[in-house]
This record gives sequence, structure tokens and C-alpha cells, in this order.
Amino acid sequence: MAGDVRPGLCVIMAGGRGTRFWPLSRTSRPKQMLSLVAGRSLLRSTFLRVAPLVGAEGILVVTSGDLAAETAAQLPELPPDRIVAEPIGRNTAACAVLGVGLARRLDPAAPVALLPADHAISDEDVFRDQLAAALARAQAAGTVVTLGVPPTRPETGYGYLETGLADQRQPDLLAGTAFVEKPDRKRAEAYLAGGRHLWNSGIFVWDAAAFARAAARHVPQIIACIEPAVAAYGTPGFAAALAAAYADCPALSIDHAVMEKLPGFEVIRARFGWSDLGSWRAWGELAPELAGHNRGSADIICLDSRDNVLHVGGKLVALIGVEGLVVVDTGDALLICRAQADQRVREVTDQLQQSGRQDLL
Amino acid sequence: MAGDVRPGLCVIMAGGRGTRFWPLSRTSRPKQMLSLVAGRSLLRSTFLRVAPLVGAEGILVVTSGDLAAETAAQLPELPPDRIVAEPIGRNTAACAVLGVGLARRLDPAAPVALLPADHAISDEDVFRDQLAAALARAQAAGTVVTLGVPPTRPETGYGYLETGLADQRQPDLLAGTAFVEKPDRKRAEAYLAGGRHLWNSGIFVWDAAAFARAAARHVPQIIACIEPAVAAYGTPGFAAALAAAYADCPALSIDHAVMEKLPGFEVIRARFGWSDLGSWRAWGELAPELAGHNRGSADIICLDSRDNVLHVGGKLVALIGVEGLVVVDTGDALLICRAQADQRVREVTDQLQQSGRQDLL
Repeated sequence: MAGDVRPGLCVIMAGGRGTRFWPLSRTSRPKQMLSLVAGRSLLRSTFLRVAPLVGAEGILVVTSGDLAAETAAQLPELPPDRIVAEPIGRNTAACAVLGVGLARRLDPAAPVALLPADHAISDEDVFRDQLAAALARAQAAGTVVTLGVPPTRPETGYGYLETGLADQRQPDLLAGTAFVEKPDRKRAEAYLAGGRHLWNSGIFVWDAAAFARAAARHVPQIIACIEPAVAAYGTPGFAAALAAAYADCPALSIDHAVMEKLPGFEVIRARFGWSDLGSWRAWGELAPELAGHNRGSADIICLDSRDNVLHVGGKLVALIGVEGLVVVDTGDALLICRAQADQRVREVTDQLQQSGRQDLL
Repeated sequence: MAGDVRPGLCVIMAGGRGTRFWPLSRTSRPKQMLSLVAGRSLLRSTFLRVAPLVGAEGILVVTSGDLAAETAAQLPELPPDRIVAEPIGRNTAACAVLGVGLARRLDPAAPVALLPADHAISDEDVFRDQLAAALARAQAAGTVVTLGVPPTRPETGYGYLETGLADQRQPDLLAGTAFVEKPDRKRAEAYLAGGRHLWNSGIFVWDAAAFARAAARHVPQIIACIEPAVAAYGTPGFAAALAAAYADCPALSIDHAVMEKLPGFEVIRARFGWSDLGSWRAWGELAPELAGHNRGSADIICLDSRDNVLHVGGKLVALIGVEGLVVVDTGDALLICRAQADQRVREVTDQLQQSGRQDLL
């Protein structure tokens, strides 16, 4: 794209290891690799969502070693050097430092968007417009711009962005005043009523120099570890440098270690549909409607059964007199879960871990 | 057994077509063919239960044409002529007339027990002792003796036997005064409290001549149809005679057409464990206990889940926060049913029939 003006670079953080979609998700096939929405993986959807804006050459994916081959298979448009595999998981701060560092090697001046690989977003034209606005604003103001989603329910599973007044000329650009951790129900209801809090989408758009300053200030040890690997990017010594960088790198969350400590930031009020797909129930909200007010993906016969979320392939499901269940069938496992308890799927995988059932993890 | 005194003959009525164990039961594999209890089919268990009493040569099985081969495979001890296939289902009266008629061809004087092939019975030594007593009593008194099961709950799914006073010398031998159809809840509770009503086990033990008289009186058209086939038993023309016999034979229930019209009968109070296995829930009561107060056959991880009945093979089942469900998984179908609604499984098979899903029936 020599000569083109690129709006910025996108770093897709794709090394996640969530267990909340067990039994469909497994260690070797985590959530971002699953075709949960739109018939393709969340990772590929994330890639396709930003590619029209920044081009494939404007995208860099940070994943984990055991997912690198599958990532390359899902994103054949990406040159091999744009898929970087962390040798070991060190939480999100190391990943962000690495991703922004490598992006600066590609284009030292470009703003950088850090994007989760495993969320669902609709209204993609709107999303790209707002992401482009965030990239431009981050660079122009030398700051970080987050995308905040107007809450529609008193959700206790998300972090929130507290905002101040909007700029009257740009009503969707808000001053961010605080990152707020997952609230209790009462606070979540107050946030919803108050109108000053937006859901934290986890999408952070940085001016590259501002990121470097913030990281140097809040996570200097991580910078010290990762810097040599960034310097070796594009050389034969990169893999070895990366292994050395991660060996002793602190494992910190970018939210806790950096974002929550910022004196200020900016927020763009999202006008697109967004879900973090944090559970089977969240997936059910986006999944196709089935007979009898059930949702999901299954061939069903339904007698007096409603509000169930089903992910069952290759067989008929007969429901009689059941409500509010999550049912997920794979060849080797069957989950039947009260929908309200779907966060407890993790306890199942914990038990499998303890009993050495690696075949099911 | 020339020279031996045989206590009687047993006719196992094994042509049933129940749908209540769908999706495990299918047209080609009805309930009596399923290994629901004790690791072998209910049919084979029925055979093995009576064989020590009357010998294999004292047993005759009446089944349907499409189950004849499987019946022979499950009962290799039986000579081929002891497995008789009805060419078409004509309810239980025709089956009983045929079975008793053929039994009289084998031994004109022997009393005949008519036994369902698809019930579960425990305490088998006690069962055989009581069946022997019933055979002896039927013959001695020239009557019919039924086996009645003391009720343990106000069951509305069974027929009842109303009884009079016991013979003081034989406290388990009661005068039967009426067959009672499935009662409503209130009447079932009164029966349970009153102590004069026993569950109708469906096991009827007849003096052969008394049966012939009763049948001639109450179902003469069936006698007229079936008689030529009975006469042809053991000849090359038997199959053709049977086809002709059933072509126009009335389809009546033996309970309604004969038993309920008897002026009197005798009842032996059963001292063995009995279940008609009328539903998945009934099966669950006999099935092995699983972790967390669940029952059935499955490899489970159980979080806050109890009173579920599971029949799932070849995969792990994770239950989270669910109670009172029936879960049955086969390769091609998954049933999830509120246990209290398990009688509605028939509605599922009805829907499958209507939509032409023969592959699942």
C-alpha cells in the first residue's frame, strides 16, 4: 500500500483459552476457532470485519503456539509473519505490548487497534466507520480511544466504562473517567439507569506513542522482557528471542495493569451490535430461533418446552415439558445445564482436569 | 419330559409395540427386546424366569412376524415351532386364544400361564413358587388365577384387581371380585388405603378348559377365526392357516373382552417385586444409582443436579442445576423430558409418524 494513507493497524488478540463453550470448545479448539455465529469462526469473522478497513497487510494476529497452524489455515490471506505465536500465555498485557510493538515495526506512526478475536459484532459497516473514527481520534489526540457499548440490561458479567460529558459537535465521543470492574446487580442497575456507563467492549485503539508511554510507566518489566523480541521481528532470531522474552515475563492483565490506571481516556459510543459471547446463554441470544421459542442449532420436536438453547447436530432432539435449559451435544459429551447456571461450565472442565480426562478438554 | 409331571405351560406374549421407551425403542426393537434391566432383554429375562419351572419345552412365545427372527435369536433354547408369529397385530384377545389353543395342542390338560414379555420381576424364586401355586390352583379349581401386586403408591397408570376375603389357610389366595380400569387419583388413593385392591400384573393363569369356555362365551368370533389355525399347528399349512385366521379376526383386548366379564376369579397376592416398566421414569426406579441421587446408565459429572433418569452411552454427561429430567441419547435422537411428562413420549412418535420420519420410529 505504498502511497496509500492507511487509517491504522489492527492487532487481533487470538490466543484465548476459554472453557465456557465446553463441550464444543476444547483446548485445541477454543472459542475463537468455533463457528458460533454466521457459519464461520469468530476469529475469521474478526479478520473479515476489519480487513476492508485496514487491508490484510494492516492486520497482525497474536495467538498461541498450538493454535498457530489453525490460525494460518483460517486466515490464508495473511502472510506468515503476520501471525505471531506467544510461546506461553502471559495474560493480556504482554500480548498487547508485543502486538503494539510489532505494529510499530510495521508502521511506526500508525495508530493501533487491539481487538479481541472472540466477540460477535453486527452492523459491520457502522463498526468499521466507528473503528476508523477511533483510529483517527487516537492519533490526532495522542491518546487511547475505547469503544463502549450502551447497556441494554443490568449486566453483571461485563466491565463498564464511566464517561463524562459528550462533545456537543461529536455526541458519540465521550470523555472516559474510569474503568469499572464487573459490578454487583445493584450497581449494574444504577449504571443502566444513570446513562453514564457503557459496557467495555475490550476494543482499545491507541496512538502508538501514547501506548509506549503508558506501558513504560505501568508495566516497565514487561517492556523490558518483550522489547528484544520486537527488535528481532523479521529476523531468523525472532522465535528464539520471543521464547526468551516470555520465559520470565510477568503475567498481568492489560485492563488492570494499564487501562484502569490511565488518568483519562476517550470513549466512542458504539452504534453497532455487540456481544462478548461469554456463555452458551449469550450465544443463544444471537442464535437462530427454533420452534416454540427455543433458540440455537438443532432439529427439534418441541412439546410444551421453551426458552431452551440447543447446540446439537446430526440427530433429532425431542423436548417435552422443559424450559430454560442449555443442551450441547458433541460426539463424546453431552451438557445439560440450567441456563442461569451456564457460568458453572468451568467447574465441569475443572473436574475433568482433576480427573485426568484430557480427552474431553 | 415323558413321565414327568409338568406344573403347566407358559405362553409369553411378546408381540408388543410400545413407544414409551423411544428413542431407545423402535418398531424393529420394541421394549421387550431392550436390555433395560439385568443386562439382557426383558423377553429373555421372562423366558429365563419361567424356564426353571416348566422347562424350555413348556414355553411358547407368541410374537409378530417382523420380530420372529430376533425372538429366535434371543431364545436359542426354544425349538422353532415354539415361536409363533402373528401375521398382524389383533390386540391381546386373539393372541391369548391362539396361545392357549396351541398350548392345548401341546398338552390338552395342562394349565396355561399367559405372561407379558416386557415386565420386570425381582425375587424370582418367590415368583416361580407363586406361579407354580397359581398353575396348580387354576387346574384344581377349574378357574383363572391372576397375580396381584400389593400397591405401594396411588398409581393411576395401572389396572387394579378388587378382592374379597382371603382363605385363612392360604392368606395369599384371594377371591377376585372385579377388574378395575386405571383409576383417577382419588380412587387410587382410596384403593391404597383400603387394602382390598391389588395392581393387575397382567399375568393370568388359566385352567385350559375354563379358558376355552370363557373364550367361547365372550369372544366366539375370535375362536371361530383362530380355531382352524390351531388345528393346523405342526402341519405345513400352519402359516397359511394363521394368515387366514388373522385376516378377519376382531381386535379386542383380553382384559376388556374376557377378564372384566368373568363372574369371579382368584387372585394370588404377589410376594415378588414387580414393575410394568411403563415409562422411562418407571425404569429409573429400577436402574442403578448414579452420583448425586440420579439414576440410570451414564457416565456423569453432576453439579447441583438430582432425580434425573439418564440412559446415555458412549459419552460423558455433564449436568448443571437440573432436576427431574429424563435424558435418553441414541445415535440419531436425544430425548429431554420432564420426568412427570414421560407419558407424552408417545406424542413425539406420533409426530414422527405424521412427518414421515420412519428412520426414527
